[in-house]
Amino acid sequence: MITSNANSQVKDLVRLMRKSRARNEARVFLVEGPRMAGELARDPDWRGRISKIYLSESYADRNKKEQEELRRCAQAEILADPVFAHVSDTKTPQGILAVVRQREYTMNDILGTDAAHAHVAVLEDLQDPGNLGTIFRTAEAAGATGIILSRDCVDVYNPKVVRSTMGAVLRMPFLYVEDLIGTIDELKQTGLRVFAADLSGDRTYDEEDYTSGCAFLIGNEGNGLRKEVAECADHRVVIPMHGEAESLNAGVAAAVLMFEVSRQRRHQADISTEM
Amino acid sequence: MITSNANSQVKDLVRLMRKSRARNEARVFLVEGPRMAGELARDPDWRGRISKIYLSESYADRNKKEQEELRRCAQAEILADPVFAHVSDTKTPQGILAVVRQREYTMNDILGTDAAHAHVAVLEDLQDPGNLGTIFRTAEAAGATGIILSRDCVDVYNPKVVRSTMGAVLRMPFLYVEDLIGTIDELKQTGLRVFAADLSGDRTYDEEDYTSGCAFLIGNEGNGLRKEVAECADHRVVIPMHGEAESLNAGVAAAVLMFEVSRQRRHQADISTEM
Repeated sequence: MITSNANSQVKDLVRLMRKSRARNEARVFLVEGPRMAGELARDPDWRGRISKIYLSESYADRNKKEQEELRRCAQAEILADPVFAHVSDTKTPQGILAVVRQREYTMNDILGTDAAHAHVAVLEDLQDPGNLGTIFRTAEAAGATGIILSRDCVDVYNPKVVRSTMGAVLRMPFLYVEDLIGTIDELKQTGLRVFAADLSGDRTYDEEDYTSGCAFLIGNEGNGLRKEVAECADHRVVIPMHGEAESLNAGVAAAVLMFEVSRQRRHQADISTEM
Repeated sequence: MITSNANSQVKDLVRLMRKSRARNEARVFLVEGPRMAGELARDPDWRGRISKIYLSESYADRNKKEQEELRRCAQAEILADPVFAHVSDTKTPQGILAVVRQREYTMNDILGTDAAHAHVAVLEDLQDPGNLGTIFRTAEAAGATGIILSRDCVDVYNPKVVRSTMGAVLRMPFLYVEDLIGTIDELKQTGLRVFAADLSGDRTYDEEDYTSGCAFLIGNEGNGLRKEVAECADHRVVIPMHGEAESLNAGVAAAVLMFEVSRQRRHQADISTEM
């Protein structure tokens, strides 16, 4: 059992928790809590990627049954409770933490099995970890096929992002790109219609047809999309707003658009079934 | 100028910042930042409610012009920069803080000028300040008329909630109620159709008609609605989800529902105009 915060493994964990550079150099990320760790252990695509497990002493003593599956996946190390609390990103640590090798997705993963019905969110310079996590969670629920992020977005593997995805980060393909405008062109060449969520858009979002492959450009929380990025879109769409509200939270704007896609595709499927 | 954190006004401000009980006993709340403070000073319903203004020394020196309107509304006090930072709820204090008398809304305010077209969000036991703030911001943009909160929801006047409403807290009527079920009955008697956002709902949310007065029951982030509250609704509606997502963020669920109301009412207005 490790009992000192000065232990080199503990120092490494703290670095991986705090620094995206450390995570990206080691090509790993951290997953906290029995729920998400359990999902990793049960998922054939992730099981082999768990490189190490850390348990708090009290968790290891209490939950023998729950640990079995995880312990078959990787070597487990016990941390004294105060050491675990020192490493943990949460106020009330749940006593279990997995070091997991990152997955690399390709553009094909983002487009899903049928590019003609791809449904992609493209995020520019998104900064708030909670927003990004919520967008992953929402995207999965709305049936999006993947998420593209500009290089200056917050790190998907930031522990707060991972936590607020509620597991969606394990299932939703994503790709960081250096050249966002080039990538948008690539999406268009693949046949996707690209829509910019833009306060100066001239069409309301629900006047457009999202039943074939589509992508939505969502901008930074404070500044929206850069002009040159918004101009790459086939269409700029606006979400009409009442009152004196000047904009929507980025996660809310993404949710309204992605669930409109879901709604239209569900209705189309209903009509096909009836015919 | 106040230069000590031990000053009694400073101690009062810290209490008002941290404790909902202190805010509710004094019937005030705090508004930080030039943007929202400026909105207060320009709004006839709020201007008279500003009871005091605090400026950081450096802000007071720099932004003479910006302060004029606010200084006409209430007495201003200067705090040394470190004292202002001690009081502020933000990491990078903007140097301006207003103490504002709370407003009391009635059920009539919640229902708006035309109860037959009321659009109300009813929140049970919502705990996350960021979620609550986002719901206020979204509700205003979606044209909701008011928000009802169970007594155990987080305090709307919590500084993090106030901040994340982006000003909507100044414009969106809201009401805390002791008896949530009694209040839901009252809404039904007024003629509103009441919908519970419920994972076990048997109708999808977009199959219902929201063009007349309606209210949505939104539950706690972790547990959803209590069974006895969900059962008060006229209908339980579900937002269909793909993938392995088990639920949506409460703010996202509220956004999808409230913007469906907005969409339906906009389309109805379009049809009326065409006829």
